Amino acid sequence: MNVIEGGVCAPKGFMAGGIRCGIKPTSQKKDLALVYSHNACSAAAMFTTNKVKAASVQVTQEHIKDGKLRAVIINSGNANACTGEAGLEAAKKMARCTAESLMIDPNDVAVASTGVIGVPLLVDVIEKNIAFLKAALSDDEQGHANALEAIMTTDIRTKEIAVEIKIDNRNVRIGAMTKGSGMIHPNMATMLCFITTDAAIDSGALDASLRYAVKKSFNRLTVDGDTSTNDMVLVMANGEAGNKQIISDNNEQLAESREQGAESSDQLAEIEELNDYEIFTEALEYVCVELTKMMARDGEGATKLITVTVTGASCEDTAEKLAKSVASSSLVKTACFGADANWGRVLCAMGYAGVDFNPEKTQVSFKSPSGEIEVCKDGQNNQFSEDKAKLILSEDEIEIIITLEEGHGNASVWGCDLTYDYVKINGDYRS
Amino acid sequence: MNVIEGGVCAPKGFMAGGIRCGIKPTSQKKDLALVYSHNACSAAAMFTTNKVKAASVQVTQEHIKDGKLRAVIINSGNANACTGEAGLEAAKKMARCTAESLMIDPNDVAVASTGVIGVPLLVDVIEKNIAFLKAALSDDEQGHANALEAIMTTDIRTKEIAVEIKIDNRNVRIGAMTKGSGMIHPNMATMLCFITTDAAIDSGALDASLRYAVKKSFNRLTVDGDTSTNDMVLVMANGEAGNKQIISDNNEQLAESREQGAESSDQLAEIEELNDYEIFTEALEYVCVELTKMMARDGEGATKLITVTVTGASCEDTAEKLAKSVASSSLVKTACFGADANWGRVLCAMGYAGVDFNPEKTQVSFKSPSGEIEVCKDGQNNQFSEDKAKLILSEDEIEIIITLEEGHGNASVWGCDLTYDYVKINGDYRS
Repeated sequence: MNVIEGGVCAPKGFMAGGIRCGIKPTSQKKDLALVYSHNACSAAAMFTTNKVKAASVQVTQEHIKDGKLRAVIINSGNANACTGEAGLEAAKKMARCTAESLMIDPNDVAVASTGVIGVPLLVDVIEKNIAFLKAALSDDEQGHANALEAIMTTDIRTKEIAVEIKIDNRNVRIGAMTKGSGMIHPNMATMLCFITTDAAIDSGALDASLRYAVKKSFNRLTVDGDTSTNDMVLVMANGEAGNKQIISDNNEQLAESREQGAESSDQLAEIEELNDYEIFTEALEYVCVELTKMMARDGEGATKLITVTVTGASCEDTAEKLAKSVASSSLVKTACFGADANWGRVLCAMGYAGVDFNPEKTQVSFKSPSGEIEVCKDGQNNQFSEDKAKLILSEDEIEIIITLEEGHGNASVWGCDLTYDYVKINGDYRS
Repeated sequence: MNVIEGGVCAPKGFMAGGIRCGIKPTSQKKDLALVYSHNACSAAAMFTTNKVKAASVQVTQEHIKDGKLRAVIINSGNANACTGEAGLEAAKKMARCTAESLMIDPNDVAVASTGVIGVPLLVDVIEKNIAFLKAALSDDEQGHANALEAIMTTDIRTKEIAVEIKIDNRNVRIGAMTKGSGMIHPNMATMLCFITTDAAIDSGALDASLRYAVKKSFNRLTVDGDTSTNDMVLVMANGEAGNKQIISDNNEQLAESREQGAESSDQLAEIEELNDYEIFTEALEYVCVELTKMMARDGEGATKLITVTVTGASCEDTAEKLAKSVASSSLVKTACFGADANWGRVLCAMGYAGVDFNPEKTQVSFKSPSGEIEVCKDGQNNQFSEDKAKLILSEDEIEIIITLEEGHGNASVWGCDLTYDYVKINGDYRS
């Protein structure tokens, strides 16, 4: 697998573009993006679990039912959530005018929105600018860079990636871009992620692959414990790589055996040769994990990327719950911000995770480019050097490693520190 | 019911005291407190649900098994949690030396600790100072004020209350003091609460009464989502008021019928005359709710007390879950800090509470001494005055009122805003 340039435009047959149409009233930033495939695509998506769903989520859920899409239009600056019947009409209109402009079926257009909740979306502004948006489409550097800029809200860094793999002796590419820096918590908080691929893969296999990758990545990301109304991860596959189509037959079973038989994809590769579905899924997982880390690093006000890794738990689910509880704790997050080796807060957060473990058989280490230090052994203080711990925690990438002795359950979860700037950004987001 | 002075020393037959013995190494603050009853007490307590339990919690759980106590010794500055066998020995020694000094049974002494986790407790310092602590006991102003000071850690305000009620034509008093400003989340986070009463009540009735009151108060308080290792709410009743003893017979049933039959204690009083158990429980609930509000107002770095009230939910449990989700949301908390009428975040937090409700039949109002404003009607923007909303949210006591149309389930939950100072306090708590 090679990491390549090009973002969502890296796979063959995809174009992207972004413009400013004026949805963000007080800003000169771009706010409208489009990703488009020349040919029909298999498509799969996952959406927010919030009971309050934005209009865009409702429309896209409808349009993806047949497993097919050609384009996705995205606006930032307005979430089009809690906007009632008018909001739903606006989202439908976004799809319709995009389809007319591209001369495709409205049912093949997905819609996504992000921004403030409860404010009517000025869809006429979007309609008026749709021709400009179409004209901005390109498959070069400008295309994906502009689209990427147009989906950002409080994001500071751009977050995109592309990889190339071999499937069936063809070069297959996956590209992706994502938006999200706050309101981020397991089960996909305010994040939008658009993935393109030229793999030939049917929508059933694509769906299984996406679910597996999201479970191991975006659903293990927490910024502030809030799950938003607008989340969406969407993948479109246009088949232009020309590989023999990957089909859904038995893939779920495969994914499960993969899950149970091997602790990691590395180990799996040793056990047996991967089939095409597995090669694709491994690459998709890589793409999603890298984007997850980028989002954690770009968490609102964040100065540090925190990875919490639990090994030796009774099962993977328990490992994940323990790691999430630690990564979500405001006290752990502020301690990381202050580079304070307060491991007691780590144990405390594990203690209220709602799963069983033996505190007296718990080891905690802090690790960063400056080194590694075991601060807690068998649930007690390990007489460590506070100076060394401070040095390690002062880096901007920290790993909290928790080792239990109960089984083979491992999981990593990503988060960030809690800082003055988080309070600043969110104390006055709307104005 | 009258609110009176005197804190834990208000009920007859109780003394309290507090001294500095040196557990907080870098501070001149008091760190050791004692509450003592001249006579035998019925006792009841509730403890943290965290899997990681401090040594003091383990020892007190053992000592309260027989429903009897005479004294409680409390240290601040060290949680004596994650300290292994030595920590357990230290907690037992605290009880033992207290008992020797007071010439009572060690089994009648409860132990509580609060402070840093994972640091060995210097119990010899406590033992050396136990005579001074005993000498500091008094039933006057100085007694409860010193004890109160000695249980504080990051608390800024002192939190105590006392009330007087009539039971069986006798004056019965309840006094209480509490510690807690951070690491506070439903199911009792770093909070210690010690309640004294001269009511005659057996330990079974006392336990039922305490559980009812805590459910309606401390378990509806959230500061930062963290539940600590050391929480304890403890009540001792010495019977010196001379009322006919309240006994446990049927009280649980009573509490349940009370729960189902009436929406509030006010309504209940109208329906039927309260029995002695109910009069006592109503007063205990009042004491606990007032302390809960004091803790929320004193939340680490907090500038505002936030009350979230949900009415019209399908049941009380659903109302409580919705209200907790809103009060715990970092985004709602920062919006309150910024006086930003961002009601979308309120709906969003309700949406991930994990319970059913109809977003399109949801009303949200903000209320404070400056007035009340309905910002969301039927799940949509209510075209309100942003200026008026800002004025209302600028007060230091805010109520978020959520009205549903699904049933008679009501609940209030208390919390506070999330501020720069929360980050500051917790970024470097240990040093």
